[in-house]
Amino acid sequence: MVFWKRLFNNTDISNTDQKSQFKGEPVKLKGQTDGQTRIFFTREREIDLYELEELCDAVGWARRPLRKVKRALTYSFMVVSAWEVKGNRKRLIGFARATSDHAFNATIWDVVIHPRFQSKGLGKGMMKYMIRQLRSEDISNITLFADPQVVDFYRRLGFVLDPEGIKGMFWYPD
Amino acid sequence: MVFWKRLFNNTDISNTDQKSQFKGEPVKLKGQTDGQTRIFFTREREIDLYELEELCDAVGWARRPLRKVKRALTYSFMVVSAWEVKGNRKRLIGFARATSDHAFNATIWDVVIHPRFQSKGLGKGMMKYMIRQLRSEDISNITLFADPQVVDFYRRLGFVLDPEGIKGMFWYPD
Ligand SMILES: CC(C)(COP(=O)(O)OP(=O)(O)OC[C@H]1O[C@@H](n2cnc3c(N)ncnc32)[C@H](O)[C@@H]1OP(=O)(O)O)[C@@H](O)C(=O)NCCC(=O)NCCS
Ligand SMILES: CC(C)(COP(=O)(O)OP(=O)(O)OC[C@H]1O[C@@H](n2cnc3c(N)ncnc32)[C@H](O)[C@@H]1OP(=O)(O)O)[C@@H](O)C(=O)NCCC(=O)NCCS
Repeated sequence: MVFWKRLFNNTDISNTDQKSQFKGEPVKLKGQTDGQTRIFFTREREIDLYELEELCDAVGWARRPLRKVKRALTYSFMVVSAWEVKGNRKRLIGFARATSDHAFNATIWDVVIHPRFQSKGLGKGMMKYMIRQLRSEDISNITLFADPQVVDFYRRLGFVLDPEGIKGMFWYPD
Repeated sequence: MVFWKRLFNNTDISNTDQKSQFKGEPVKLKGQTDGQTRIFFTREREIDLYELEELCDAVGWARRPLRKVKRALTYSFMVVSAWEVKGNRKRLIGFARATSDHAFNATIWDVVIHPRFQSKGLGKGMMKYMIRQLRSEDISNITLFADPQVVDFYRRLGFVLDPEGIKGMFWYPD
């Protein structure tokens, strides 16, 4: 199945769902009842750019040129996504990616869960999945830049602010 | 000359010093008088790992496995270094590298100037060189994590703390 063919050298060895050919890690949501609908996390990178744009639109992020988004996905060290799967239909409901030197550090960017799926533990689960995957690649220093309203979300996951006074700093063009 | 052959697809089009075959940007230091000695910045990546280790030792950084350092250099988006060149001899006196998604963001790591060459404007010059090189690659969001004692060094270069309340956060293994 072309959609899930491995374009990159990932080493995700999690389950393959026979029925949907979906390669990923099945997730149980808080209060999930519908036996037909399943949720998966995956490191597969074959993501439709328009579907990703829709997801980012849904949380109100500014649009970015798809050409650059494509490049960013290609050169991210890791791309993680969450999917709702019903039979053969699947829908992108969560996303995050990380840049890295493939040795010491990784920096996580663009963490998003579709509003309709927020507050069900999915963001937490996806971040835990990503941390586990980064650890499995021997990355020990995981960093990110958090918007003020999500600092507590990351804190619950074990992220700390300014350890030993280390400060995140930003440079923007004039 | 094998040492300076381009292993990576850099687009540094700066000067080549004919005498030393050194490809890089010549620098004038504060109070530099010795006509024999020249300083260069470069994006060339052919750096001797032992020489880099010596430089990091000189500022008291903890040693890291060379195998991982090598990997980190390979997978960094950009590596910048400063060299003292006397005739055919050259010596590594400054270093910095950046991870990136090659599209939107870059994060700078491991900024160091040899103690004997500090406080001469070299750190500032090397960072400005790096920012210029990142800008030339169309990267607009440049970030870093600053130790408390160097926050002011980066501030003078135009880096800002917590813009719009965005916070650097860290996750470490237990
Ligand atoms: C931030 C985001 C990814 C969280 O995903 P989510 O699926 O809603 O979060 P979860 O349901 O997994 O919540 C996990 C925990 O964090 C808490 N939490 C969730 N969002 C939070 C927030 N904004 N602030 C503080 N805590 C939050 C939850 O209460 C929950 O706590 P618990 O473990 O004690 O039950 C999601 O809200 C989102 O996409 N927001 C818009 C985009 C965004 O701001 N991304 C971050 C950019 S830096
Ligand atoms: C931090 C470091 C790279 C600065 O390099 P440098 O060549 O000594 O700095 P420069 O001479 O270019 O200084 C540029 C400006 O920053 C100021 N400055 C330099 N180091 C500073 C510091 N630690 N705190 C505050 N200001 C500093 C200088 O006074 C100078 O100011 P000016 O432009 O007004 O004259 C160097 O001191 C170093 O390698 N330190 C050890 C390693 C380290 O801590 N790296 C950073 C890890 S996050």
